[in-house]
Amino acid sequence: MEEFIVTFKPQDRKIRVKRGTDLLTAALKAGVSLNSSCGGEGLCGKCKVIVKKGEVKTEPSKLINEKDRARNAILACESIVESDLEIAIPSESLELHKIESHDAEEFSKGVILKREGAFRHLPLIEKIYLELPEPTLDDNTSDLDRIYREIERRLEGLFLSAKVSNVRLLGDVLRESGFKVTVTIAHKEGACEIIAIEPGDTSKHNLGFAFDIGTTTVVGQLIDLNTKRILGSKIAYNKQAPYGSDVITRIIYGSDPKGLEKLNGAVVDNINEIIEDLSSEFKLDMTNVHAVVCAGNMTMMHFLLEIDPTHIRKAPYIPTMTTFSPIHSSEVGIKMSPKGILYCLPGVTTYIGGDTVGGVLASGIFDSDEVALLVDIGTNGEIVLGNREWMIGAAASAGPSFEGSGLSHGMKAVNGAIQKVKIAKSLDVEYETIGEAKPKGICGSAYIDLLRGMLKNSVMTKDGKINSERASKRIRKGELTYEFVVAFKKETATGEDIVIQEDDIENLKRAKGAIYSAILSLFIKVEKEVSEVKKVYIAGGFGNYISIESAVSIGLLPDIDRSLYEYIGNSSLAGARMSLLSRDALAKTKDIARSITYIDLSSEPRYMDEYVAALFFPHTDSGRFPSVR
Amino acid sequence: MEEFIVTFKPQDRKIRVKRGTDLLTAALKAGVSLNSSCGGEGLCGKCKVIVKKGEVKTEPSKLINEKDRARNAILACESIVESDLEIAIPSESLELHKIESHDAEEFSKGVILKREGAFRHLPLIEKIYLELPEPTLDDNTSDLDRIYREIERRLEGLFLSAKVSNVRLLGDVLRESGFKVTVTIAHKEGACEIIAIEPGDTSKHNLGFAFDIGTTTVVGQLIDLNTKRILGSKIAYNKQAPYGSDVITRIIYGSDPKGLEKLNGAVVDNINEIIEDLSSEFKLDMTNVHAVVCAGNMTMMHFLLEIDPTHIRKAPYIPTMTTFSPIHSSEVGIKMSPKGILYCLPGVTTYIGGDTVGGVLASGIFDSDEVALLVDIGTNGEIVLGNREWMIGAAASAGPSFEGSGLSHGMKAVNGAIQKVKIAKSLDVEYETIGEAKPKGICGSAYIDLLRGMLKNSVMTKDGKINSERASKRIRKGELTYEFVVAFKKETATGEDIVIQEDDIENLKRAKGAIYSAILSLFIKVEKEVSEVKKVYIAGGFGNYISIESAVSIGLLPDIDRSLYEYIGNSSLAGARMSLLSRDALAKTKDIARSITYIDLSSEPRYMDEYVAALFFPHTDSGRFPSVR
Repeated sequence: MEEFIVTFKPQDRKIRVKRGTDLLTAALKAGVSLNSSCGGEGLCGKCKVIVKKGEVKTEPSKLINEKDRARNAILACESIVESDLEIAIPSESLELHKIESHDAEEFSKGVILKREGAFRHLPLIEKIYLELPEPTLDDNTSDLDRIYREIERRLEGLFLSAKVSNVRLLGDVLRESGFKVTVTIAHKEGACEIIAIEPGDTSKHNLGFAFDIGTTTVVGQLIDLNTKRILGSKIAYNKQAPYGSDVITRIIYGSDPKGLEKLNGAVVDNINEIIEDLSSEFKLDMTNVHAVVCAGNMTMMHFLLEIDPTHIRKAPYIPTMTTFSPIHSSEVGIKMSPKGILYCLPGVTTYIGGDTVGGVLASGIFDSDEVALLVDIGTNGEIVLGNREWMIGAAASAGPSFEGSGLSHGMKAVNGAIQKVKIAKSLDVEYETIGEAKPKGICGSAYIDLLRGMLKNSVMTKDGKINSERASKRIRKGELTYEFVVAFKKETATGEDIVIQEDDIENLKRAKGAIYSAILSLFIKVEKEVSEVKKVYIAGGFGNYISIESAVSIGLLPDIDRSLYEYIGNSSLAGARMSLLSRDALAKTKDIARSITYIDLSSEPRYMDEYVAALFFPHTDSGRFPSVR
Repeated sequence: MEEFIVTFKPQDRKIRVKRGTDLLTAALKAGVSLNSSCGGEGLCGKCKVIVKKGEVKTEPSKLINEKDRARNAILACESIVESDLEIAIPSESLELHKIESHDAEEFSKGVILKREGAFRHLPLIEKIYLELPEPTLDDNTSDLDRIYREIERRLEGLFLSAKVSNVRLLGDVLRESGFKVTVTIAHKEGACEIIAIEPGDTSKHNLGFAFDIGTTTVVGQLIDLNTKRILGSKIAYNKQAPYGSDVITRIIYGSDPKGLEKLNGAVVDNINEIIEDLSSEFKLDMTNVHAVVCAGNMTMMHFLLEIDPTHIRKAPYIPTMTTFSPIHSSEVGIKMSPKGILYCLPGVTTYIGGDTVGGVLASGIFDSDEVALLVDIGTNGEIVLGNREWMIGAAASAGPSFEGSGLSHGMKAVNGAIQKVKIAKSLDVEYETIGEAKPKGICGSAYIDLLRGMLKNSVMTKDGKINSERASKRIRKGELTYEFVVAFKKETATGEDIVIQEDDIENLKRAKGAIYSAILSLFIKVEKEVSEVKKVYIAGGFGNYISIESAVSIGLLPDIDRSLYEYIGNSSLAGARMSLLSRDALAKTKDIARSITYIDLSSEPRYMDEYVAALFFPHTDSGRFPSVR
């Protein structure tokens, strides 16, 4: 069949493809990861590219507007190669894939650190330097038993083993080093496996990675396992995005073995790039990295471990596994020590994964005397209520609004995002951006501020419509609905106005309604009043500047004493890090996963009523929000 | 470089080799396994081949006699290819590699079976058929946990796990089978690993192999793990023989990584051929075989697991490992279920391996109220003395004489071997051969009879010289020393006289002296008299017809009540089989290995004296053998 050459600019990547190949596939093959959140279905409009030379056959789409037509823009996924092509990629079609490195700190810094000392410092990987007595005819224990004997003196009561593949040359190693060696031990579910024996004392170099594998972003941290220090952090968008922005689209894609292989490869690429970046940044030898701990939702874990996800999305929504034995990291293609181990935090069920279990670990609810609540607002909202005696959990389909997705000017809490907003009576807007950069868009915490400000200043009605009667240059009719201008184009990095539209408000209203009603449903389930809670931990990808006052004002969070709230940031990552640094913590995650009773909200009789009642700012029943009135 | 084609007849194998390649290497490459026990050093003379066409450059050798020169025979290892060649291989240069299949029964049959019931029937691999309740919204446990839950009901208190690689498609397997599956569980050191989950009920098909990996022979048995039945047995010469007949030569060869790879490959070939032969004989699907248990001496285990053996032969003779965690059988190239597990019996030290530990298990010494003795006469002699409270063990460098090696007409106890001998006063010889075949040579048990008969009839003096003054057509001067004719050529399968020479007697005397003095040294060590022993188990590769009377008469075994002796055959294999059928037994091997105190005879002050005193028939101190006088 006829073949053509497609050149992508400005990357200057060329690829030879057959006639009829779509441009999204061509770009992926050429190593250019275009944005795409619908999986190439022509629905999200994120893969716009500009045809500079040559011919394509393209499907008409409502997502291509006048301006697009003028610049010859098309949807890559809906366009088929018909000749040699030169394609220009506008920066917004790639933007998702670039997160600046210092942003990682925003996502990982220490709000949670105060609990890190809750567990003994017993890292999953230990390096022990041994000076062994040399064997004699009278002390003729085998080389390996000589090592066991010495280790058992130090780590009493543990079951030691070694894979023969890791000790085949032990005889030489011992003798060439004068019986002075460093033994690397991996702790695995109560047993200890010797995974490496090196000459000399290398015990100082003991590194590990903690990862939060999110549907939208992947965050990794390099940790010194001896000192517990976080050496560095990196964040990247999940490379699975081109196969679907949401979990369901990806599951459908991954139900085919080839699709699953791609999804697995994408997230492993994420992990490898972060490991490589941090290793080269700190000039570290990656072969000293023997442990990775990953926390993520159940679907992400299935993709990471290349487990068929088909049945997750079919009633009754059963994952293949919720607990994961440690495996060789090389088995899934993670590039670090060839003897390294991958640990994954266990989950409860399809909707409560290791990310939430990590959050429960990091927040300490499982060990709390009083009733506490954890609300983790990621692409989904997970909620756990309980204490030392009991825990129940539920998941709310909040959608990705609070992570800045699916909104006209939404973005992650990264450099250039508006993260705080104040609206004056005059309707003047004051905002802060991350990195003090010119604004590029609005992140979750700012949307919450914005809704509060609009409500308070009657820019928005209680059911989420923009008050078009109020005269202001910031209130106007947009292409489809009314909108409120947060930043005018002269102020912005994009050269376009940054606005919030009625559709955005509708999305945010549903998201906050889903979360609030889920929280309420758990209290109803255990027959407790919201006022009985003594601590509320808010976790998630908002960035670090969520205003609890704003969140309560719009009816996202219950109207209780604000001092009971604590924002704990990325608690999934914190849970992974704590587990990496303490096998007690890792063992505790299993107890936690077993202890949480999952409540399926769709079968809770009152959930739908609660949800509908919550589709109002702050709530249909304003008695629930006395301090907001 | 110039290349030539070498054709080997009668196999008709052709191989292209470079000028200067030696013929032994060429034959190996062509897949023709010539005998060779010196490792190609020109010392053993076993690799004779006949040049039919073409030219070789060959080193002169004393091992090439007149007859050889007449037929154009050369040593393959000492001859270099100088042109295209046609090489004929005489059958004796291949004979070692053929053992007829029924011979395996001789090596494995049931002398030991009476102890097989000593352990609970808890095979290392279990197959459990489960009919699981289908999941619902209320019973939404993950697929794997659903299986765990059901198994935990049946196997209480065990730690269950599964490698993600074995359950990636579990979702489909469960749903396509209507949640009726067979779970294959491997028991590993107290933990249970799920290694396979298949649709439907396949629990009836559960097979395993037990192997005795000897320096000279490899014996395998196919076992039905459900019924404990031995379905079949096979024996083959250890394919490592071309790299050295004895352990030391092979260790030197294996100290180079490439050499080790070859030694490993050779024994794995042995195992694979036996597995394949038995599987095809019984028309079995090898993928149902999930377990292999191997017992062998420490060097054989190092080769099997491809562990550097270098330090075994250097003082203070330390092996890398003496205990072995179960590994995937595929890791060493064993061909059965790709998920199969290889278990190896633990040893005590370089000189007391898993074969002896298997013997202690099978004989029951470890559980005996009274003092018992185990004498395992293989290529080395291993001796264990003790009871439930204590055990000590030693190894004697007996050499391979009693296995029929290193003697002018020695052979293994296989088809055609003379296995029993009686010498009449007239010096007429009556003998029995294995398989009632024409004799090809003499095996260990017959040599013992022969020495006794020669001694009794004054054919041989007490120091092992042939009485040349006694007139008989059977006593004559051979090429180098005097010899006694056991079978004249008209009776034999080889068309040559079968004789015992003074050199053979010397070898046998040293062998029996080494074993007897080792036994005595252990009694001396624990300050006990030989008469205090209440049971003596004789194990080894003699075949099943060793005469205890003969063995005592020549001073190989102590002169005690003959009824205390019991011949238990291949107790290494029996130990492997018992471990395969009972995890209690396998666990016990570890206790046994730990419990045996190894006595290094070379550092025992009285051992050398005892040895020298034992170089006499039956002994220098005839008071030790009162019943023989």
